[in-house]
Amino acid sequence: MIQIYTGNGKGKTTAALGLIVRALGRGKKVCLIQFMKKNFEYGEIKFLSKQENLDIFQFGTDQLVDPNNPAKIDFEETEKGYRKCLEAISSHKYDIIVIDEINVAVKWKLLSLEKQLELMEMETDAEIIMTGRYAHEKVLEKADLVTEMKEIKHYYQTGIQARKGIEF
Amino acid sequence: MIQIYTGNGKGKTTAALGLIVRALGRGKKVCLIQFMKKNFEYGEIKFLSKQENLDIFQFGTDQLVDPNNPAKIDFEETEKGYRKCLEAISSHKYDIIVIDEINVAVKWKLLSLEKQLELMEMETDAEIIMTGRYAHEKVLEKADLVTEMKEIKHYYQTGIQARKGIEF
Repeated sequence: MIQIYTGNGKGKTTAALGLIVRALGRGKKVCLIQFMKKNFEYGEIKFLSKQENLDIFQFGTDQLVDPNNPAKIDFEETEKGYRKCLEAISSHKYDIIVIDEINVAVKWKLLSLEKQLELMEMETDAEIIMTGRYAHEKVLEKADLVTEMKEIKHYYQTGIQARKGIEF
Repeated sequence: MIQIYTGNGKGKTTAALGLIVRALGRGKKVCLIQFMKKNFEYGEIKFLSKQENLDIFQFGTDQLVDPNNPAKIDFEETEKGYRKCLEAISSHKYDIIVIDEINVAVKWKLLSLEKQLELMEMETDAEIIMTGRYAHEKVLEKADLVTEMKEIKHYYQTGIQARKGIEF
């Protein structure tokens, strides 16, 4: 099955993290692949990187991607991330594969839509979780489950900054 | 700050679980209070109950609540859960307090709306996370952050049952 968490609200990556915790509690094998993030200092990564049965791979740099003018390295890292997805899915080693922020990588044209759809068509028994706002219409069509995280109200709107331990 | 995760889509409790993992990775102290759930066999509880810096309290029975005719014990358990919330918030021991399914407990009149609002008005530095569909309008008003998890598509609609390690 393929699950998509998209939309402009808080809770997409954290929902995927919650699924990881639930699956680990059941003794399942999990793979977390993150696009556009390379920072083992995230609270969740500090915690999860110590866990058994979970492999974590990050592709990106410690700089934010400029959507209007991505750097060459952003394309290279995304391509490596895509190949890791192919490898993880075809390995049949995992019960759950979380592909974090892939929807954004496609929206920003770091990854082609065709490649995302190709990942969704691969033969696998694993549960595939894809996150990130801007999920493409065709991705939604092909998915088995789609939740839109809709921002109704956010404290960022009142000038609050991202806080360590809450937002990252 | 008070965060609300509501709506009919998958991802509310898992988003709260993800926040817990992130906070634990930062060395924060976390309290998870669950209404209408008493089952340490959930995947996430099996996993999280082994973690330091996290206290878990469940209030409910192993039977589903009948919204049209809740049992006496459902009211008693909810009252105990409410008192645990008061205690956790006023203890100033925790950085994050997750109150899972409280919105449903209010919708089903196991807990009064006034009591939920009272919890939201308590003085605290802790981040309070409240989950469950049917969050009341007044709860949304008082919250600092609200995400609506909106079901766009769900495999339950095609007859798939809840799966161990994915849904529980």
